[in-house]
Amino acid sequence: MQDPLADFSPHGFPLSAKELTAYLETHVFPLEALLSAGRHEELAAGIAEVRQDVKARGAWAPMAPRDVGGLGLPLTTQAHLGAILGRSPLGHHAFGAQAPDAANIELLHAFGTPAQKEQYLRGLVAGELRSCFAMTEPGHAGSNPTEMSTIARRDGDGWVLDGSKWFATSAHGADFCVVMAVTNPTGPVYGRASLFIVPCGTPGFRHVRRVSVMGDEGAGYASHSELAFEGCRVSAEHRLGPEGGGFLLAQARLGPGRVHHCMRWVGVAERCYDIMCARLVSRDIGGGKPLASRQLAQAWVAESRVDIDTSRLLVLDAVRQIEAHGTEGARVPIAAIKLHVARALDRVMDRAVQALGALGMTDDTILAYLYRHERAARIYDGPDEVHMTTIARHELRRFGGAK
Amino acid sequence: MQDPLADFSPHGFPLSAKELTAYLETHVFPLEALLSAGRHEELAAGIAEVRQDVKARGAWAPMAPRDVGGLGLPLTTQAHLGAILGRSPLGHHAFGAQAPDAANIELLHAFGTPAQKEQYLRGLVAGELRSCFAMTEPGHAGSNPTEMSTIARRDGDGWVLDGSKWFATSAHGADFCVVMAVTNPTGPVYGRASLFIVPCGTPGFRHVRRVSVMGDEGAGYASHSELAFEGCRVSAEHRLGPEGGGFLLAQARLGPGRVHHCMRWVGVAERCYDIMCARLVSRDIGGGKPLASRQLAQAWVAESRVDIDTSRLLVLDAVRQIEAHGTEGARVPIAAIKLHVARALDRVMDRAVQALGALGMTDDTILAYLYRHERAARIYDGPDEVHMTTIARHELRRFGGAK
Amino acid sequence: MQDPLADFSPHGFPLSAKELTAYLETHVFPLEALLSAGRHEELAAGIAEVRQDVKARGAWAPMAPRDVGGLGLPLTTQAHLGAILGRSPLGHHAFGAQAPDAANIELLHAFGTPAQKEQYLRGLVAGELRSCFAMTEPGHAGSNPTEMSTIARRDGDGWVLDGSKWFATSAHGADFCVVMAVTNPTGPVYGRASLFIVPCGTPGFRHVRRVSVMGDEGAGYASHSELAFEGCRVSAEHRLGPEGGGFLLAQARLGPGRVHHCMRWVGVAERCYDIMCARLVSRDIGGGKPLASRQLAQAWVAESRVDIDTSRLLVLDAVRQIEAHGTEGARVPIAAIKLHVARALDRVMDRAVQALGALGMTDDTILAYLYRHERAARIYDGPDEVHMTTIARHELRRFGGAK
Amino acid sequence: MQDPLADFSPHGFPLSAKELTAYLETHVFPLEALLSAGRHEELAAGIAEVRQDVKARGAWAPMAPRDVGGLGLPLTTQAHLGAILGRSPLGHHAFGAQAPDAANIELLHAFGTPAQKEQYLRGLVAGELRSCFAMTEPGHAGSNPTEMSTIARRDGDGWVLDGSKWFATSAHGADFCVVMAVTNPTGPVYGRASLFIVPCGTPGFRHVRRVSVMGDEGAGYASHSELAFEGCRVSAEHRLGPEGGGFLLAQARLGPGRVHHCMRWVGVAERCYDIMCARLVSRDIGGGKPLASRQLAQAWVAESRVDIDTSRLLVLDAVRQIEAHGTEGARVPIAAIKLHVARALDRVMDRAVQALGALGMTDDTILAYLYRHERAARIYDGPDEVHMTTIARHELRRFGGAK
Repeated sequence: MQDPLADFSPHGFPLSAKELTAYLETHVFPLEALLSAGRHEELAAGIAEVRQDVKARGAWAPMAPRDVGGLGLPLTTQAHLGAILGRSPLGHHAFGAQAPDAANIELLHAFGTPAQKEQYLRGLVAGELRSCFAMTEPGHAGSNPTEMSTIARRDGDGWVLDGSKWFATSAHGADFCVVMAVTNPTGPVYGRASLFIVPCGTPGFRHVRRVSVMGDEGAGYASHSELAFEGCRVSAEHRLGPEGGGFLLAQARLGPGRVHHCMRWVGVAERCYDIMCARLVSRDIGGGKPLASRQLAQAWVAESRVDIDTSRLLVLDAVRQIEAHGTEGARVPIAAIKLHVARALDRVMDRAVQALGALGMTDDTILAYLYRHERAARIYDGPDEVHMTTIARHELRRFGGAK
Repeated sequence: MQDPLADFSPHGFPLSAKELTAYLETHVFPLEALLSAGRHEELAAGIAEVRQDVKARGAWAPMAPRDVGGLGLPLTTQAHLGAILGRSPLGHHAFGAQAPDAANIELLHAFGTPAQKEQYLRGLVAGELRSCFAMTEPGHAGSNPTEMSTIARRDGDGWVLDGSKWFATSAHGADFCVVMAVTNPTGPVYGRASLFIVPCGTPGFRHVRRVSVMGDEGAGYASHSELAFEGCRVSAEHRLGPEGGGFLLAQARLGPGRVHHCMRWVGVAERCYDIMCARLVSRDIGGGKPLASRQLAQAWVAESRVDIDTSRLLVLDAVRQIEAHGTEGARVPIAAIKLHVARALDRVMDRAVQALGALGMTDDTILAYLYRHERAARIYDGPDEVHMTTIARHELRRFGGAK
Repeated sequence: MQDPLADFSPHGFPLSAKELTAYLETHVFPLEALLSAGRHEELAAGIAEVRQDVKARGAWAPMAPRDVGGLGLPLTTQAHLGAILGRSPLGHHAFGAQAPDAANIELLHAFGTPAQKEQYLRGLVAGELRSCFAMTEPGHAGSNPTEMSTIARRDGDGWVLDGSKWFATSAHGADFCVVMAVTNPTGPVYGRASLFIVPCGTPGFRHVRRVSVMGDEGAGYASHSELAFEGCRVSAEHRLGPEGGGFLLAQARLGPGRVHHCMRWVGVAERCYDIMCARLVSRDIGGGKPLASRQLAQAWVAESRVDIDTSRLLVLDAVRQIEAHGTEGARVPIAAIKLHVARALDRVMDRAVQALGALGMTDDTILAYLYRHERAARIYDGPDEVHMTTIARHELRRFGGAK
Repeated sequence: MQDPLADFSPHGFPLSAKELTAYLETHVFPLEALLSAGRHEELAAGIAEVRQDVKARGAWAPMAPRDVGGLGLPLTTQAHLGAILGRSPLGHHAFGAQAPDAANIELLHAFGTPAQKEQYLRGLVAGELRSCFAMTEPGHAGSNPTEMSTIARRDGDGWVLDGSKWFATSAHGADFCVVMAVTNPTGPVYGRASLFIVPCGTPGFRHVRRVSVMGDEGAGYASHSELAFEGCRVSAEHRLGPEGGGFLLAQARLGPGRVHHCMRWVGVAERCYDIMCARLVSRDIGGGKPLASRQLAQAWVAESRVDIDTSRLLVLDAVRQIEAHGTEGARVPIAAIKLHVARALDRVMDRAVQALGALGMTDDTILAYLYRHERAARIYDGPDEVHMTTIARHELRRFGGAK
């Protein structure tokens, strides 16, 4: 995979891989210090400017379908681009490809009514609206649907929502929220919940707080909120997809969503790797020798290279299998990339911190920000442990089953 | 080691292990939220109150010698106490046992002139003065003495210091600084530097910035600063210890200092373990079963128990060897505890974060603060790699030598 | 722990630690090549000669009680000796301290009738008899008592045994066998089985085969057999301990038994460590530099030193807790040493093989023999996984319980 | 990668992937017990019969070029086949694709004179001759060419060889040996040695011993020998390739050779995985529940699946890079597969042994044979450590270099 950028020029995207990488280095990396320093307003202004420029270059919305204003690129190309954009925590945002909007775009595109698409989808793709997704609840295991306590009960021709959510990424300042709520508490387990679009100004919708994560409350796009739904009423037209289809849609959202996460993590890992390598060759350990001359430092490089390359290849193979067998037929590879890439990223980040020593602990580089925030990779969208069980159960069927 | 507190009642300390633990839970844990939220002034006020109470109970300064106002406890007792105080990032501070003051107290006690003791030592032990220690430099490997660029040159009967330091813990608001500077650039490697006491108001002493570490600038006691010495003149009476004795003194300071660090980390690990275990038994995964019923969660508990118990035993054995053979004769066990305990802590913290899931990422518990700040354990006072080399070189002598 | 032999001179044992180590090197190590080459008859003759000499020196049976002919040493001393004897796979055998005889001696001493002691115990301690222990069954999980299928049914005043056992260590050529068999299939789970002494010539007792383990069938002491009991009748006097007491006695046998195993493994690890270190300093990698000058090799040394020292300290602390709280009260430390020491040994052996390279794969050193046979440490007497669950269940009780 | 066999039908090979797998299970797996039991003559007879059958089916020599009697398959296809054949330690041998003959075939094909090809190559491909390769020496690091002590000095128009070699795989009963010897001790480092073809009956060629490896001396194809060259004279026509070209040729031999090794290891890992999974679903742990229901067992499955899939994908990507950039241009990926796949295999084997428990230690399955013999994967053809350094040095050039 040595220099995978050298021979990659994505069809339908106006920049070559090298150009995109250079663009990020020049236009986006300089804004990162504002992020780790919590200077969110300056950051928002800086990013807004870059976004205008990205639109002007025709590189906007590479993950969105063509018919709603995106570039309509194949999933493999999206994956490659994601690994480049992921080199900065601001990369996806700068190009209109950020979570959770990107996944909400997929949802609305696949399941929205014409009216919903008109009202929410176009503005989302255009970057004029911001959205969030509210599934996880503070008191319950995120990965277990039977534990959800947010309820939506029918009220005339509408629905009234009550309950608490948290880790609603980007909810702060969002225009609307896609919420999962139980609509049939006694139905079959995976048919209990439905999705709703709740505009953030709806009475009964309350933004409780930005949850402080690893020392940062963050703001706007880069924050995670706790939300309350207190007798929050929406009309029937606000249900997204069929009644009882909540988990199914969330699952559909998660399949390619995991490809996007994982490829972004490959990008994060590449960035940490670059920071580490640059330090190893420049750090003098005495006698004119760089830290890179030490064998344990060389081991960090080699093991990280292997971690990153196996990650990238495993994701690309998962894309191949999703395209060949569908999301359902590719459950093992999808779980496998979530497991492997998140862990590989964790190892790469840890080696980079160790390689930088005291400097790695400081916010003088972006590494410390990545180290503490991307630890979440092994937790959200199902922790490692859930994915191990998924893989094992499916694999063991070939041998007669786990139970 | 199961419940090591049950049968430990330290001689010469007014609280039993259980009482001390309970005291921390009641008086100190509640202040921690102020720390992770960066509310430093409220925190300072709260801690000041606790310190008064600790003094009133006769529990103040357990790590300091008796003749200067400390409790004069044996090193083993200090180690045990350190593992309890370490359960809170505020524990040592609350009891007048915090780094870097504790180590500076040892230095001044062993090497200070009567005048230095009078002026700096008593106030330090009494908690009326705060100090810092400035050795590491931004451009150079902290563990390599030949790379130091801060210079102190003779000027009449005094010295003029020029150079940069960083990671001077607690320098913000400190009264004086113990600084290492090169006094003989062409001398034998370990005889090139000397230590100086520099009052923080001295002209030419400049507090450049609190270095932002993992998202926190911190303040006061809980911060790490970059300092500049710009033609900073001190009198001959400000040299601490003999000329050229800098590394020797720093080394003497580091030996028992590592015992203190490592036992504090044992305490940090116990705290994370408690947070993890409490979560595992209370977190429902459906069907009335707690997360603790899952075998992978049980593995976290078992492996963490082993990590902590081996850490504690290894430190206690190192104390035994320091007492039997001196710091120099105990170089292997001292390096071994730094290596093993820092890594064990890292593993325990990581498992605890994974066990808490999304909650573990938030600042709703103290875990996230510990996770990101105590990552430094594997870096400062020599990174893992330096200690591995130290152990190997000494051990291999028994077999004929590494080189 | 650096050179723990230096200051250890066991009370009641005629050789100092250094002398014992030297004795093994001179008299026992030279016989090991016969073991790995499968030259069992020559080996038996050589060992017999050493055993005579050990008896002559008054060093025989250091693990056995004094009243039946052993040295009657305290458990801590036994543990220290075990770590020295364990440096050779022949060490315990040479000194009359080998499994499974040592544990059977404990059983007979604690639970045998005077007649049983007379007939079996004295000869066992004296090394005139050899015994085996048959619990594990080929078709069933060794660690689950409810799965045992060997049955002993009453027949007049005697018992008739039917069933299969395997991994009966040293059964080949043994004089008698201690067998666990179900005597009350519907009783309370841990009261279903009893122990029986079955002389190997009893009709219906059949030695099926020596099970080939990692390429070796072995012979005599150094072998593991499959046994069949086919209508095998013994008199009432052959039951060992109370009816239904099988698991209780086996558990009692396993408690200190685990201390013995673990300390033997510490010895195995020290041996591998010595072989590794000797190689690292003598292996030239060019330019007159030894392999030991490479940092990854130094990491092997340091990490192995930590693995061994933490193992030794954890076992000694478990002994302290067994003596303070009894086997039952020390379940966590007993499980912890089984888990930690077996894994630590595995890591040390693996590093040693890697350090020796091609030579490590060959039988030119004893390392390859240890590497493949001591892999069993993580499996027998309960695999790692069982011990992790045991530790977690007990620990979590402090927090409210795992279930 | 879930069931990669399902959609793979290699062009130019008469069996589909499924058919080949089934063929091995039916015809080759049954012979494996003879291998682990050391019944080499019966084994040889059994394999000979299978080889006839394989030839009759037109599946012979899938790794050899077409013009000398092989199937002439592309490297990617060879890699896929290798992963299937590797499921048995006898697979490659049964199909005429075994090391070291396969690599010697490549050497002779690329560098042999017409006479050498006539005399050695055709017979080797046809399976009528057996060869070995002698490079490693007992006293010297195999990976350092400057340390070689076997000398070939000119003697009239021929050469006289003196020196010792070991780990000459399959030398026992071989017809000829390809030997590396120094021909110009003072030349440039990588130009000092040349290759020679030495028929095994040549005076001065001595087969010293089969080296016992992990308890097995082995025999014939499945053995590793120590060889001595004592004034061993060969004519000028026995030099293979140019004078001084020894290392270059060995390197050329090692490039695709590593692909072959690594894909064979993928097959070994798949076999261990299958044995593990079959055991997990069939092993009852009580209450009618299989071992597979335990979460730690599920972790073994998931982590092994990831280990194997990342291994396969990394090798296939290395093939792509070798084809695109040549062996020299693909040094990083070639080193990366050697590092990653050997380690992944090690982990998979270890988990399988643990999953099988006591059974895994026995030779009742082929697992124990694989566990002890394939440990060599991390050692031969350069140990892990050498490959880490190679990767790091090349990677760090992008950042300015390691030195």
